[in-house]
Amino acid sequence: MSSLLIHNIGMLASPEGLEARRGAQQGQIRVLEHAWVYTENGEIISYGSGTPPVSFGEKLDAGGRLVTPGLVDAHTHLIFGGWRQNELAMKIRNVPYLEILAAGGGILSTVKATRAATEAELFDKAEAALNEMLAFGTTSCEAKSGYGLNEEDELKQLRVIQKLNKTHPMDVVPTFMGAHAVPPEFKEDRSAYLDLLCETLIPAVAKQKLAKFCDVFCETGVFTAEESRRILEAGQKSGLIPKIHADEIDPIGGSLLAGELGAISAEHLIVCPDEGIQSMARGGTIACLLPATSFYLNSSYAPARKMIEAGVPVAMASDFNPGSCPCLNLQLVMNLGCLKYRMTPEEVLTAVTLNAAAAIGLADRVGSIDRGKQADLVLWEAPDLNYLCYRLGSNLVHRVIKKGNI
Amino acid sequence: MSSLLIHNIGMLASPEGLEARRGAQQGQIRVLEHAWVYTENGEIISYGSGTPPVSFGEKLDAGGRLVTPGLVDAHTHLIFGGWRQNELAMKIRNVPYLEILAAGGGILSTVKATRAATEAELFDKAEAALNEMLAFGTTSCEAKSGYGLNEEDELKQLRVIQKLNKTHPMDVVPTFMGAHAVPPEFKEDRSAYLDLLCETLIPAVAKQKLAKFCDVFCETGVFTAEESRRILEAGQKSGLIPKIHADEIDPIGGSLLAGELGAISAEHLIVCPDEGIQSMARGGTIACLLPATSFYLNSSYAPARKMIEAGVPVAMASDFNPGSCPCLNLQLVMNLGCLKYRMTPEEVLTAVTLNAAAAIGLADRVGSIDRGKQADLVLWEAPDLNYLCYRLGSNLVHRVIKKGNI
Repeated sequence: MSSLLIHNIGMLASPEGLEARRGAQQGQIRVLEHAWVYTENGEIISYGSGTPPVSFGEKLDAGGRLVTPGLVDAHTHLIFGGWRQNELAMKIRNVPYLEILAAGGGILSTVKATRAATEAELFDKAEAALNEMLAFGTTSCEAKSGYGLNEEDELKQLRVIQKLNKTHPMDVVPTFMGAHAVPPEFKEDRSAYLDLLCETLIPAVAKQKLAKFCDVFCETGVFTAEESRRILEAGQKSGLIPKIHADEIDPIGGSLLAGELGAISAEHLIVCPDEGIQSMARGGTIACLLPATSFYLNSSYAPARKMIEAGVPVAMASDFNPGSCPCLNLQLVMNLGCLKYRMTPEEVLTAVTLNAAAAIGLADRVGSIDRGKQADLVLWEAPDLNYLCYRLGSNLVHRVIKKGNI
Repeated sequence: MSSLLIHNIGMLASPEGLEARRGAQQGQIRVLEHAWVYTENGEIISYGSGTPPVSFGEKLDAGGRLVTPGLVDAHTHLIFGGWRQNELAMKIRNVPYLEILAAGGGILSTVKATRAATEAELFDKAEAALNEMLAFGTTSCEAKSGYGLNEEDELKQLRVIQKLNKTHPMDVVPTFMGAHAVPPEFKEDRSAYLDLLCETLIPAVAKQKLAKFCDVFCETGVFTAEESRRILEAGQKSGLIPKIHADEIDPIGGSLLAGELGAISAEHLIVCPDEGIQSMARGGTIACLLPATSFYLNSSYAPARKMIEAGVPVAMASDFNPGSCPCLNLQLVMNLGCLKYRMTPEEVLTAVTLNAAAAIGLADRVGSIDRGKQADLVLWEAPDLNYLCYRLGSNLVHRVIKKGNI
């Protein structure tokens, strides 16, 4: 048995109050001062404030620092070939996205690079990203396919995720997102691609147990709400839980559909209408907001406060991808939550821990400091939660503890 | 003699073209591929592309990476006591700044904490910040006083800067900014504080050679343009070169004054009017823009493109301070330059190297990769300049070289 006692914690802050509905009450935080946490075999056994229990195992002096649960990044496009830095100068000059696409850029250039990459190349690249995420305090994440857009290359991406989950300390939860775009070879026959997705890819992914979730990009020019429904229902039939990229640019019904289907989460939601918020509230759908993408694209920000007021649990994630958000740093996402969504530090903490865990089906194991949960913890170079959200641009991680390992 | 040959540089990118006027042509960048740099005793001796010269000294393989000059942070309030994280929750709730002030917050809380701090405490705290800045690629910076607001505590701050400049690898250039605010004890008699500044503090600072520049916060409710003129002229008489915080909130004449006085730089310039831009162009004043402050305060962004088009050299800096910008990361400032000012990566590089060096009087020694300049270089985890500006939220520094030291 290996045990670890973390003592001399200046402030222990953890969300609590996970309800029967999927998310937790936003901003309901348990705060303990002069605190300690005791773990055995990677599991939290007890915690408290005041004098810590006698322990004969490993000890770690937190030096009066803030301790929170490890961060959870509930939305990443972790597996991709290439980068897209050459599009930056075009974006600055306001070259329209369709022109960038025509010049061989945009998502299709990433599809090309991802198809061309070997499994080993994709693995090495994603592993480096996971190492960096861990160094920024992320201890669990989701990862999507969606740059293969055919059977061979979608399965290749998902196998990379599976292997990373087995070999890397990070918990990595896989999402199938063959419905990220219509691939060029189906440009003239999109219904054939829908058939391929629903009749071949989804069953193949499910059979090989390569994904837990099925996601679709419901957007003007990508997949309509009706097409999205067909894809997500096909996923549900195969046992894949629905997620949906909704209302990022145009409100074409994605958030409404999310609530109707009881999707576990809807993503982006920048232009989410009130009916969409109500539908998500009814359906128990978590709003997974991606403020770094709004920042990077100079678009507006999702109506986070409205969602919180409507009782929709809010999670925040990085959206790490090579096009609209080449950022994997959840600390910056936390800053954006405060500065742009006007969420309090307590609400922000819920959004990047317990509600993010709930959005990827891990809330029973991670996302809060509770007895029986994984000992995924971050010691911060911060005396309190306000400081963690207030400082900008520094990596405030002092130490990351994953499953009780220092 | 110690020598260093850096070889196998994938891309060497350096601004060039420093003109008789103080700044350099924005975005005029020299790019070499397959490049090398040779240094002796901390000085750049030669550089080129292709086969490097034979060298018997130390060698460093850049591994195909991007190399640029070390970054220069031309505007920081490095020396302060305390932090102000407790104001974050108030800001999120839109509590007016005057109410925060009344609650004991705002700049005066930093003045209180700075006055209460010992020289050793201020030194240790600023040293930690410099270490972090260096790790993000900054090799020279400016540091202002301005949280003492009396003779004892302003000189205390400036002595800390002097000591840091001597003991820390970073070059730290001192600016006297007693005119940062009117201190509470002079609230009822601001003209007496102006007298103190002009007749006592400025001469004392100059006599003890504790500052190179004199800065003033020209803003509604702080110092008027006429008061600013008096302070900066008093500085000039004592040999302190003028800088000015101008047009951050209200355009009350700061940028006009900057050009008239021939100030070396004007800072912020968020609401800078066209006449101000013209005045700066005539006066040879560098626009020192602080986009992370705009970001943090949710204010608008300075008209950088207009300035560049008018031939005003643009520098960018962090504005690191505990109130409006608790950020010391110039890489994030570079992202903001592209995303919010719509500057190209080349223009951004000029802004955080050569023009920033010019804004603090160091352009003869640092800010570009040229023969005879200090060997202040950064090796980046990036293949090219576009990538450095495109990635967000990661520290892309691979290695910082300061005066030829690895």
